[in-house]
Amino acid sequence: MKDYFLNRKTCRLYTQEPIPTDKINDIIFKASKAPTCGNMQLYSVVVTENHEMKQKLAKYHYNQPASEAPVILTICVDFNRFTKWCRLRNADAGYNNFHSFLMGATDAIIFAQQIVTIAEMEGLGTCYLGTVTYNSHEISALLQLPDLVIPIASLSLGYPAQEGEKTDRLSPEAIIHYESYRNLSDEELIDIYKIQENNPENQKFIIENNKENLAQVFAEVRYPRSVNEQISKDFIDLLKVKGFLDK
Amino acid sequence: MKDYFLNRKTCRLYTQEPIPTDKINDIIFKASKAPTCGNMQLYSVVVTENHEMKQKLAKYHYNQPASEAPVILTICVDFNRFTKWCRLRNADAGYNNFHSFLMGATDAIIFAQQIVTIAEMEGLGTCYLGTVTYNSHEISALLQLPDLVIPIASLSLGYPAQEGEKTDRLSPEAIIHYESYRNLSDEELIDIYKIQENNPENQKFIIENNKENLAQVFAEVRYPRSVNEQISKDFIDLLKVKGFLDK
Repeated sequence: MKDYFLNRKTCRLYTQEPIPTDKINDIIFKASKAPTCGNMQLYSVVVTENHEMKQKLAKYHYNQPASEAPVILTICVDFNRFTKWCRLRNADAGYNNFHSFLMGATDAIIFAQQIVTIAEMEGLGTCYLGTVTYNSHEISALLQLPDLVIPIASLSLGYPAQEGEKTDRLSPEAIIHYESYRNLSDEELIDIYKIQENNPENQKFIIENNKENLAQVFAEVRYPRSVNEQISKDFIDLLKVKGFLDK
Repeated sequence: MKDYFLNRKTCRLYTQEPIPTDKINDIIFKASKAPTCGNMQLYSVVVTENHEMKQKLAKYHYNQPASEAPVILTICVDFNRFTKWCRLRNADAGYNNFHSFLMGATDAIIFAQQIVTIAEMEGLGTCYLGTVTYNSHEISALLQLPDLVIPIASLSLGYPAQEGEKTDRLSPEAIIHYESYRNLSDEELIDIYKIQENNPENQKFIIENNKENLAQVFAEVRYPRSVNEQISKDFIDLLKVKGFLDK
């Protein structure tokens, strides 16, 4: 357990063994003790286990292997619950704005990461499905999310079918700044990313995608401008539809 | 350790005992093994320990007690590093958009929460300073954050001067939804928030603030519409200034 944090690995392949409902609820309950803004708990989690629902949801996650897990959790910013309570108590709830979305997103992601740590420490495998923002309108409709509720993190959960692969991270100097932000020189930047450029898996991607280098694989294949711009539009639109931004 | 997650408490008062630099770096290094979008690590952390810098930073956090901790970490969305590397490699980095901010914010908050868990498990106390978004322009200037870098989470870190207070959370039924989102009835909502309404600390707030109930304390004193709307404007402006939204 001592070295858990240093050695943790993301798990993308799961057995079909179901996770007992009690265990899921227990993990979520423990995770709800994570820090939350003003103790408001500005999040909800939708648990997807039903076969048909999972198939529909997996489609919006491009049927990536991790989306075949026995359980998918969609963690949502939720100002619906809090706002309704305020109204019942004759309090003017002013949470239909961008800052409230940010507060909720922070709460929801803290909560999601706490679920990851607890689940992994209890022997489950987990994986974030970064695609949650790619089809956010469709996922919101499928899960019947009301106003002031927006999906922000998706997690797959299950018993690992194989050990995850260890991934190299940047050296700490790349991410730590003392007292103020220090821009790295070109030489330092080239040096810092060598650990990823020299990784054999990544070199395979370069050849497969017919690119010159790893940065081009990221910027032109995996996370290209056109996709980022399209999702930006869609997500800003969702913020408007759900009441976090003026139309 | 087994019950750490269930019993964890936020710590707002610290001794002045400094945290050895090696320990801080070790926690950050371990936390960097947390999940990150496509292994891009879209974050940076600025460590504030210098007395003068801490005083300036504390001011932007309204000199709340937790801002007097020996160490303040400002965790930032960072697409500056990745974009520069892409440009050095002749790759078209398309990360000056809202979706990229969201990806970075998710990465940064996962990383922040991993720091919290590791630090607390190693005997340190931590507290998020939710005020990081309240003076985001000023904090960005103080820490000299460049384009595509935005402060998103602040943490105070230190050895606890007193045990934190346990806070009640909503019952799990309030936050878990099976298969699809279920709107709670008015009766259920009233019932669910009773745990907080009946808390003696919270009842003190109601009297001190001359309000009728706890919801009014939240909505009209602690997190009022006018403040949320002002910060929304400021933060959207910061997204434009730093290149994540079109001007």
